[in-house]
Amino acid sequence: MLFLVHMQVNIPHDLDPADAAALIAKEKAYSQELQRNGTWRHLWRMVGQYANYSVFDVASNDELHQKLSALPLYPYMTLEVTPLAQHPSALAPN
Amino acid sequence: MLFLVHMQVNIPHDLDPADAAALIAKEKAYSQELQRNGTWRHLWRMVGQYANYSVFDVASNDELHQKLSALPLYPYMTLEVTPLAQHPSALAPN
Amino acid sequence: MLFLVHMQVNIPHDLDPADAAALIAKEKAYSQELQRNGTWRHLWRMVGQYANYSVFDVASNDELHQKLSALPLYPYMTLEVTPLAQHPSALAPN
Amino acid sequence: MLFLVHMQVNIPHDLDPADAAALIAKEKAYSQELQRNGTWRHLWRMVGQYANYSVFDVASNDELHQKLSALPLYPYMTLEVTPLAQHPSALAPN
Amino acid sequence: MLFLVHMQVNIPHDLDPADAAALIAKEKAYSQELQRNGTWRHLWRMVGQYANYSVFDVASNDELHQKLSALPLYPYMTLEVTPLAQHPSALAPN
Amino acid sequence: MLFLVHMQVNIPHDLDPADAAALIAKEKAYSQELQRNGTWRHLWRMVGQYANYSVFDVASNDELHQKLSALPLYPYMTLEVTPLAQHPSALAPN
Amino acid sequence: MLFLVHMQVNIPHDLDPADAAALIAKEKAYSQELQRNGTWRHLWRMVGQYANYSVFDVASNDELHQKLSALPLYPYMTLEVTPLAQHPSALAPN
Amino acid sequence: MLFLVHMQVNIPHDLDPADAAALIAKEKAYSQELQRNGTWRHLWRMVGQYANYSVFDVASNDELHQKLSALPLYPYMTLEVTPLAQHPSALAPN
Amino acid sequence: MLFLVHMQVNIPHDLDPADAAALIAKEKAYSQELQRNGTWRHLWRMVGQYANYSVFDVASNDELHQKLSALPLYPYMTLEVTPLAQHPSALAPN
Amino acid sequence: MLFLVHMQVNIPHDLDPADAAALIAKEKAYSQELQRNGTWRHLWRMVGQYANYSVFDVASNDELHQKLSALPLYPYMTLEVTPLAQHPSALAPN
Repeated sequence: MLFLVHMQVNIPHDLDPADAAALIAKEKAYSQELQRNGTWRHLWRMVGQYANYSVFDVASNDELHQKLSALPLYPYMTLEVTPLAQHPSALAPN
Repeated sequence: MLFLVHMQVNIPHDLDPADAAALIAKEKAYSQELQRNGTWRHLWRMVGQYANYSVFDVASNDELHQKLSALPLYPYMTLEVTPLAQHPSALAPN
Repeated sequence: MLFLVHMQVNIPHDLDPADAAALIAKEKAYSQELQRNGTWRHLWRMVGQYANYSVFDVASNDELHQKLSALPLYPYMTLEVTPLAQHPSALAPN
Repeated sequence: MLFLVHMQVNIPHDLDPADAAALIAKEKAYSQELQRNGTWRHLWRMVGQYANYSVFDVASNDELHQKLSALPLYPYMTLEVTPLAQHPSALAPN
Repeated sequence: MLFLVHMQVNIPHDLDPADAAALIAKEKAYSQELQRNGTWRHLWRMVGQYANYSVFDVASNDELHQKLSALPLYPYMTLEVTPLAQHPSALAPN
Repeated sequence: MLFLVHMQVNIPHDLDPADAAALIAKEKAYSQELQRNGTWRHLWRMVGQYANYSVFDVASNDELHQKLSALPLYPYMTLEVTPLAQHPSALAPN
Repeated sequence: MLFLVHMQVNIPHDLDPADAAALIAKEKAYSQELQRNGTWRHLWRMVGQYANYSVFDVASNDELHQKLSALPLYPYMTLEVTPLAQHPSALAPN
Repeated sequence: MLFLVHMQVNIPHDLDPADAAALIAKEKAYSQELQRNGTWRHLWRMVGQYANYSVFDVASNDELHQKLSALPLYPYMTLEVTPLAQHPSALAPN
Repeated sequence: MLFLVHMQVNIPHDLDPADAAALIAKEKAYSQELQRNGTWRHLWRMVGQYANYSVFDVASNDELHQKLSALPLYPYMTLEVTPLAQHPSALAPN
Repeated sequence: MLFLVHMQVNIPHDLDPADAAALIAKEKAYSQELQRNGTWRHLWRMVGQYANYSVFDVASNDELHQKLSALPLYPYMTLEVTPLAQHPSALAPN
């Protein structure tokens, strides 16, 4: 089941740079793990913004929330979640 | 080059039903043609709305505008176009 | 799986009154059928508005879209869909 | 009498972690007490957000304000309150 | 129990003038009846707008919805309802 | 002459608690003085918010600004001022 | 007493051109009469819009509402009214 | 050439009071100098806000930007600039 | 003197197609005339929208308003005008 | 390929002035380098704001994101990117 997720990252300027770098590294590792297991199906950078559009494939709302709230950068993110369904004109199944 | 396109469809209530049906059929054929040739890479229905999120793969802004403004339902659509770039954590190339 | 759905109804003033009444009756019958089978778990009127907040219990996004887009008043509605997950402090399971 | 309450939590990053944890524990205890006595009828987590939708059952506006402003996390919350009435199509009474 | 109600009136330009005048007269009579029985406690015109701020005193959400949805101009109104509670600094009880 | 005033209070979390308490006490005393002399005609708490709706009765815009900007909590408030006129259906004069 | 008034004009496309022209002529005459008697102190066109910013000098809210609602184009206008006070740095009295 | 300028002042709470007072004094002197030389034609306080509406008379966009960005409080201001033209019904030339 | 102008075109669906085509042709001729004489310096199509961003070079606000309000499609346009000044880092003069 | 980019700069008040000045100098040098090589085609100051409208000419979304995210002031900027296409009435090619 697919969800479009818009992620806006707002790391406070006064966060210790080392802490920030560590979080960002953890975020990358975590996201690549989810990409490998098919949960995080698409990840695109929005041009000119510290933000991305992603598509998640999960079995339930609860699984999505669990996966999103486990993002290392979650405390510094604003997320918008849009549930997606099969479009009648789409050739490919979701 | 990828663009996320949000398409909200607002067909006027007083449009002749036969005309509307014809337009919708043309729209489906046109979108499936673009899906087959790889331009219209993803097409998802937004749950509960006569709207979709799509991802287009085009060579330029001009090509994208030409493809979008040729949509049969274009006169009855509100579109938002978001240019996408490669995310540094994405395993798959755009 | 639960979704909060906000439904704003905007029936055009120039819709034939008999057609409107027929649609509203069908809407009531359809909603009560879904309430009986547990899909439409909660239905509350927003005070002072021709709108409601509802909670749907469905197995997937696709099922939710199918149930919503089958609403007789669907063409005259603006819907907002919010996926819900289990709250860690909630005593009752979703 | 039912009210839908949207609660967005914004705990400042620089709040002492121990204080934050204590507040969150108190919030959980307080909310579960109100759930047990029927005041806090529903509590759902919004997917991807430190926010919830809740339904309160109270006798008056004043009781609702008293119950909400007593939330331990109240100083760090943005609340939206929507009064609900009986929907004419709802099978279950509010 | 008090509610602040913002009422914006939008009578369509193409509504038959006689019908409009009849509705407006009924609205006035209805509102004055509710003012006399204490339900409609305050009614103020917003300067420069076909809108008003009112304060209603009712026993429940349901009563408020019933009173509001019975407004003759209700189909042509956009309403916002704000529940009010006793302010700790207010000398007069609500 | 009446004005509806919406007051949203945002006291910074890092304001010294004693200073905050002193300001709040002064605010209460000041508001009750204006209530006694008829300037501050109504004061209602918005349910679930550190905000109020008030109605001021003043002789001019300048007097209103003078009275509002003298509020002890003024530096921590966001105000919206709506001028009110006599409604043609209102039984009571403003 | 001064008020800044923003007036956005939206004359429906299907209004009979002769009626529209007559209304516009009446609007001009009415506004010039109020300019001559000092009520309508300033009238400026917003560049690129069928809208204006004006400053009215009136004795009360009620007078302002009476003057504004008497505008011939009033039914086709959206107005925003901002009460103005004497600025402490202004050399000229309001 | 006239421009309407909306100025919202947001002096941070933690700015040293002496610095703030000095800036405000400089702002007053600067604004009165521009009022005297006809650049700053009108200056009105928005009731209930640390904000003003002003009208500037300048020869060009560049001159306006130069005059505005030289405001001592400029770093703590949010400005909106609206170019004004002669209104066809205005008796007085701009 | 430069202004950025955002033009959103909304031609009503029920406008006679021949009239619409005539207006669009006139608009093209008018815009090309202004491009040739240097007034309309830039004209770009917003991808996916019946809208454009343009840059006008004019001597005054009044000239800009006169040029814009003379656009054949003006009655069906929503315009936003942003005055531009010389940027201190720009190599090219405006 | 052209993009309109709106850049709003928000340098925190508590950033060390020397650091801020160094960043601003680097920003100027970087932008002038891109202007010289034709990437940063237009750069205009928005009157009354620490913001600009720019037009970039790049080969792809990725190049645009790379150029924008390399702006020295990027961490303190809010950017909006609008893809532009050739307007059918524009005499000059993009």
